[in-house]
Amino acid sequence: MSETRFADTAAELSNGLKSAMRRMPGAVALITTRDPATDQPAGLAASAVIPVSMEPPSMLVAINRASSAHSAIERAQRYCVNLLGTTHTAFVSLFSNSAMREQRFASDEWRYQDGIPYLPSACSSIFCEIRTTLVHGTHELFIGDVYDVRSAGGDGEPADPLGWLEGTFAQLGRLPI
Amino acid sequence: MSETRFADTAAELSNGLKSAMRRMPGAVALITTRDPATDQPAGLAASAVIPVSMEPPSMLVAINRASSAHSAIERAQRYCVNLLGTTHTAFVSLFSNSAMREQRFASDEWRYQDGIPYLPSACSSIFCEIRTTLVHGTHELFIGDVYDVRSAGGDGEPADPLGWLEGTFAQLGRLPI
Repeated sequence: MSETRFADTAAELSNGLKSAMRRMPGAVALITTRDPATDQPAGLAASAVIPVSMEPPSMLVAINRASSAHSAIERAQRYCVNLLGTTHTAFVSLFSNSAMREQRFASDEWRYQDGIPYLPSACSSIFCEIRTTLVHGTHELFIGDVYDVRSAGGDGEPADPLGWLEGTFAQLGRLPI
Repeated sequence: MSETRFADTAAELSNGLKSAMRRMPGAVALITTRDPATDQPAGLAASAVIPVSMEPPSMLVAINRASSAHSAIERAQRYCVNLLGTTHTAFVSLFSNSAMREQRFASDEWRYQDGIPYLPSACSSIFCEIRTTLVHGTHELFIGDVYDVRSAGGDGEPADPLGWLEGTFAQLGRLPI
């Protein structure tokens, strides 16, 4: 049994985790909602998204509490997880740049269900109603029960899922055996 | 504003979410611990793993409450997230087959820190101490503050991260621009 510490200081720990997270593959999603305070669509790009349980069907997103979409999601109590495909990289740029906030929902690709925007071309759009929330540090976890799911590909080729690795866009290929 | 429902029944909803999750890219991790009840290592393969916050540095894993490793993690109050590389697929098979439980830690690749097993060849091994837990349906969320991080590649080529898509192993490549 070895008992080695790899990170000696808080700064080393933080840098070590950031570096490890850069090398952790993930999906890319746009989390969207309609803000009841303004009756306007709102959203953000996120990769901290996971399924929680199939009974009940539920999804979790971790959202920075300082983001403008955080308040909108909190007020709406609903959100849609749009899992992006490799054709959607321009949307990620729009949603990652606060100067472009006004243009985020300008595309005529957006459709609305009960006022909540979704992208019909996304790999899937997963509609959630918040059941539980939990604040941890800078972020809040929203755990939502899924009340509707839409998947692209019903009328054509399914979208190729967009991944995220090393701070840039990635695509996934089957591992050669 | 359209108001279409895509899933009409609970079965459609559940099947829709399962199908959407198959197409959601993710990392592959071995979550490991040492069970204080038996003083034996325990673990499971998981893809529902995300960073929560960098202040404090923290990671979340969603674990099926029916799994044997769930009780071990609960008792230990600590776990290690070993993010796997493309060379580690044999470990995933070992950890996904309960008949092979006895062989999971037989490899001499495992090292131990304060008794908790980690794989030095993993892309990273992230040691967490549980701060908060939350049960939702079949699963429990463990939110742990990170107390140590080890990344491979210090003395050689960094590992190529292993992904998961469509129920099988995947590798990630940079998206052509």
